[in-house]
Amino acid sequence: MPADAADSAAPAPVTMRRGRRPGPNDTRGAILDAARSRFAADGYAAATIRRIALDAGVDAALVMRFYGSKDDLFAAAMSVPTDALQRLANAFDGPTEQLGERVTRAYLTLWEGSPSEYEPLLAMFRSAVNHEQAAAQLREFLQARFVEGIVPRLGDVPDAALRVSAASSLLLGVVVGRRIVKVQPVVEEDLETLVKLIAPAVQIVLAGP
Amino acid sequence: MPADAADSAAPAPVTMRRGRRPGPNDTRGAILDAARSRFAADGYAAATIRRIALDAGVDAALVMRFYGSKDDLFAAAMSVPTDALQRLANAFDGPTEQLGERVTRAYLTLWEGSPSEYEPLLAMFRSAVNHEQAAAQLREFLQARFVEGIVPRLGDVPDAALRVSAASSLLLGVVVGRRIVKVQPVVEEDLETLVKLIAPAVQIVLAGP
Repeated sequence: MPADAADSAAPAPVTMRRGRRPGPNDTRGAILDAARSRFAADGYAAATIRRIALDAGVDAALVMRFYGSKDDLFAAAMSVPTDALQRLANAFDGPTEQLGERVTRAYLTLWEGSPSEYEPLLAMFRSAVNHEQAAAQLREFLQARFVEGIVPRLGDVPDAALRVSAASSLLLGVVVGRRIVKVQPVVEEDLETLVKLIAPAVQIVLAGP
Repeated sequence: MPADAADSAAPAPVTMRRGRRPGPNDTRGAILDAARSRFAADGYAAATIRRIALDAGVDAALVMRFYGSKDDLFAAAMSVPTDALQRLANAFDGPTEQLGERVTRAYLTLWEGSPSEYEPLLAMFRSAVNHEQAAAQLREFLQARFVEGIVPRLGDVPDAALRVSAASSLLLGVVVGRRIVKVQPVVEEDLETLVKLIAPAVQIVLAGP
């Protein structure tokens, strides 16, 4: 048995799935399928590019060439809208005085926009609430996003990681109140009224008084 | 009653469950069973004391004598800890300057305390996230609690209902971050550190700058 198949449970002959040679889209699809299964089975932290590549029957370098990083592969496998997350992260850049307003508006706007952007997030959240395995995946993904993508943008604010995760929790609560439990009058107010009310709270948590 | 009849599929007549006349506890139990079914079937708003009494085979006046109001009957049927909710409502009383701190501490303390207090709330929340029917129940129950129990305590603050529901959403987000998704470092900070960080945000939403 070849060494690289040693811990593969059932090495599927990927090349025999169809009556023609697999093109790039088939390979991408096979990688995403393998990633979804592997993240679900092992969790975000324990899953490795190497193992996902093995499951998909491709080289790890190809997975990296297609998806860049484990983080981005996870986002692609879960259909997480990476553009939207990038806009959210970008809101942390800029003058500290309007930090709360930029972040609040970016966050709430994401949930008012295209269903193709917020529905995968909503689906991940619904799963996380009822399944610890899904919660662990979401947690580890957010962790990676926060630690690498957002916390450094706050510069030398003390307790930046705590502030970012607390502010994110507050904003998640507003989305839950508005989109899931649908509490009045939070659910019926327009976006700008909410931003005006919530932004100072997010500002004080992110930047202090 | 013979042991093998205990888990018989045939529906046993309620009055024959025991070898004595049904006492007050049986009646209370029958009312709670009827309330749970009726709230689930019709939702909180549409369910009536009269109909629940009919389902339970008792007089509506008896339901009111046992449970006082539809709100309290719902709380009892769902095992919602009414004492804990009362402590939360009471935190809205007192000097405006410490409003955010009192409410934040009361809210977060509830989720650090006895599982018998927060588990029914967690169960309701988990159901609400995945079932619109349960979300409607929770929403209508919170609405009744807020409108009748908390908003008047804010006195003549403009937009009191919006402020209370927005602040509650923020605090719910902290609980979700801490107890469900378990985002670091929100999950590992002690209660007082979180209160110190979050209370000014709740203050500014409840009372303005």
